[in-house]
Amino acid sequence: MTKISALLTDLYQLTMLEGYYRGGLIESTAVFDLFYRGNPFGGGYAVYAGLARAVDYLLGLSFSDEDLRYLASLTLFSDGFLAYLKRLRFTGDVYSFREGSIIFPEEPLLRVEAPLGQAQLVETALLNIINFQTLIATKASRVCYAAAGRPVVEFGLRRAQGENGALSASRAAFIGGCESSSNVLAGKQYGIPVRGTHAHSWVMAFDDEYSSFKKYTEVYPDASILLVDTYDSLRSGIPNAIKAARELESKGHRLVGVRLDSGDPVPLSREARKMLDGAGLDYVKIVLSNDLDEYRIEELLKQGAAVDIFGVGTRLVAGHGESALPGVYKMCELEKNGSPSPRMKLSDESLKGNLPGKKDVLRYFGGDGSMVCDIICVRDTKESVEGCDAAGNPFPIPRECVGESQLGRVLSGGRAVEREDDVTVIQGRFRNNFALLPDRYKKLSGADEYPVLLCRELYNLKKDMVKELKR
Amino acid sequence: MTKISALLTDLYQLTMLEGYYRGGLIESTAVFDLFYRGNPFGGGYAVYAGLARAVDYLLGLSFSDEDLRYLASLTLFSDGFLAYLKRLRFTGDVYSFREGSIIFPEEPLLRVEAPLGQAQLVETALLNIINFQTLIATKASRVCYAAAGRPVVEFGLRRAQGENGALSASRAAFIGGCESSSNVLAGKQYGIPVRGTHAHSWVMAFDDEYSSFKKYTEVYPDASILLVDTYDSLRSGIPNAIKAARELESKGHRLVGVRLDSGDPVPLSREARKMLDGAGLDYVKIVLSNDLDEYRIEELLKQGAAVDIFGVGTRLVAGHGESALPGVYKMCELEKNGSPSPRMKLSDESLKGNLPGKKDVLRYFGGDGSMVCDIICVRDTKESVEGCDAAGNPFPIPRECVGESQLGRVLSGGRAVEREDDVTVIQGRFRNNFALLPDRYKKLSGADEYPVLLCRELYNLKKDMVKELKR
Repeated sequence: MTKISALLTDLYQLTMLEGYYRGGLIESTAVFDLFYRGNPFGGGYAVYAGLARAVDYLLGLSFSDEDLRYLASLTLFSDGFLAYLKRLRFTGDVYSFREGSIIFPEEPLLRVEAPLGQAQLVETALLNIINFQTLIATKASRVCYAAAGRPVVEFGLRRAQGENGALSASRAAFIGGCESSSNVLAGKQYGIPVRGTHAHSWVMAFDDEYSSFKKYTEVYPDASILLVDTYDSLRSGIPNAIKAARELESKGHRLVGVRLDSGDPVPLSREARKMLDGAGLDYVKIVLSNDLDEYRIEELLKQGAAVDIFGVGTRLVAGHGESALPGVYKMCELEKNGSPSPRMKLSDESLKGNLPGKKDVLRYFGGDGSMVCDIICVRDTKESVEGCDAAGNPFPIPRECVGESQLGRVLSGGRAVEREDDVTVIQGRFRNNFALLPDRYKKLSGADEYPVLLCRELYNLKKDMVKELKR
Repeated sequence: MTKISALLTDLYQLTMLEGYYRGGLIESTAVFDLFYRGNPFGGGYAVYAGLARAVDYLLGLSFSDEDLRYLASLTLFSDGFLAYLKRLRFTGDVYSFREGSIIFPEEPLLRVEAPLGQAQLVETALLNIINFQTLIATKASRVCYAAAGRPVVEFGLRRAQGENGALSASRAAFIGGCESSSNVLAGKQYGIPVRGTHAHSWVMAFDDEYSSFKKYTEVYPDASILLVDTYDSLRSGIPNAIKAARELESKGHRLVGVRLDSGDPVPLSREARKMLDGAGLDYVKIVLSNDLDEYRIEELLKQGAAVDIFGVGTRLVAGHGESALPGVYKMCELEKNGSPSPRMKLSDESLKGNLPGKKDVLRYFGGDGSMVCDIICVRDTKESVEGCDAAGNPFPIPRECVGESQLGRVLSGGRAVEREDDVTVIQGRFRNNFALLPDRYKKLSGADEYPVLLCRELYNLKKDMVKELKR
């Protein structure tokens, strides 16, 4: 992976750092939480992704001489501060949910404890990485949920938001449950299985459609999926694919599938299925692509479309329907005369506040292993705690429930404690977690709201601080 | 800029190439057009961006030994073909609109003429780069149009789709008219002016809001924009900013502005303006941020919001409302027995076809210099041609109109003919071009459809080919 530049930050981070530097605050220990405020796509959850890249970024954080020369050219920074930047490395502690976890609004997903200068500087890149990958992993989980067990191949590279957007999107889509990607670089970089069919231009490069199919199946006798809509799917494409499949059979091979990429998928796929079955080719799979998303897939399957594999591109990799995860990064504690002091923001919109102090999330599982509720609690609460809702009402947790701490240390003093880069492991974690989330929280729209509570101590701290700040 | 990997492609490009290689077609000269099918955001035009990066990609195209080892590990490719890839460089010709041009659906934006293997391989990366940057440049032009001359600062890094998505977005947003960006790396990489204010955490790092303002203005006495909504914009933020501004004045400096980031912007900004003016601070600018886009800005200004500068983030850099530009790349000609033969695709949706043969676009300007219509014509038509609409009806072009060819050669035999990397020049071209586009095509919604015609010769060629393909 390419190193992320230390300059991938908002200018104001650097001007604030100059201010902290001059004000003698830059080495005060600060604590920041990364969290998001509402579930994307109107759903009931999100899938946490991007942690490995965020860790890479923190481990490699440093300004090059060229970076420093550029910053000096802006005439905004003092020599002393530029010298500070030259020495700067990330030396803090980071606690985080594990990548692939199911997450909910307001929960601290990642906590940075570091000297204020470092903790502030890294805000922008951390948000950029985690906001985007979490958005796409969540989208992928919805698409795969709608596909109800049928494999989903991520096809989005050409419509993704930039080169690296595509690479991150392929990774996140895989974590969220996609079976594979068309993106070869993502295959090399992350070990994601790569898949493909062929394009219309392949067909157009030959004198006729059948010749193009024959040639492709000669090259890939056991791995061909033929795109049948270059001229007319049912009158030309499927008959030619059947002809090619029979020739493959006569040589001891099997056509893997056909791909439909235009027209009305329900009648087209059903008729194609009938034609293939009628020709004794019931093993030939039907792959469907063309502007699919979770809603469209759910609807097509409800209407009886005969599809075995979905190819999903644009609407997956760009998180159609939600441009960005509204993730934020807020200071919750700052060293004050040598001891930690909780911090909180109010703002003119009640929704834009944050929870003060160092926190953990306890996740409670029922007797059958399914998720019951989460409690955001003051850090280091290890046993069961009393949870209450936003209004302070106690929320009864069944006695047999067990709470599990969700935030683990991933960096200690700037060094990696436990790294996890294997996307297959992360995908496996997502799948295991997702299986424990009751269906009522998974619905594409109108999902129930999963209970995220505060422990009594945190509730009281927040209430007291609001009162004090409003004073 | 980081080099784009040759593996940033869909797997099917490589399997098709293997097929072309084995079928002896890989060196046949092919011609592909890059075009898009519908204007994004329901508008009347798009702004062409991404060309410089696309040219970089083509100039640097090559597979590393590590890439080839990965491809070999997929067991899909022959040794002969892998050896071909090892030698592969881009040796073709590329014709393109100039970056920053106003463009319309169906127009060939970029034409690749190269051996089939090369021309096919580059499809995915070219689309990725140009689809995204064009989307964002177009969005930026709409946001700036709505802001009616007020500067727009792009703030989107933390919510952009990936690290590079952010960098490309900052570049494209600048081309489409943004005044500056918060993205420091984009500043260094492209020379885009960088701007910033400060975050809530700055305020929270001090005992009270006023102390934080005082400190910030001490550090940046002539460049401070104070964020006033950490606790309460009108009751706390503005009065504290006024206090800080007066102290600045007493030392011979001036506060640049205040930033509102939450609450109802119309009453808030008007009241803030009144308070500032009442304190003799009519020079202090009001910067507004918080989920803005072109529609919101248009509405706020209509309602009389008192805003001098807009900070636009998420909805700009992620192209809110349109996940991706529906750009495609289609073969329009292929060498056949040594001579070029036009190619065309039909498909089950009439909209998914393409125009055969090598083409240019002639843009007609009226006597006052404003844009009248474009004609997509067979290449090398230099004088005025007869244009007709999709149904073949002639479109009358006023006699005084002059047609200008839009596609110029940017690569010749794989070498750059004319490079243009200066985003300020490109932004200037956009502004000049945009000024020539009549207002009826610029409306945010319900824009008129700009006339894009075909020359008679192309119209007839298309008609004949459709007839033949349907046969």
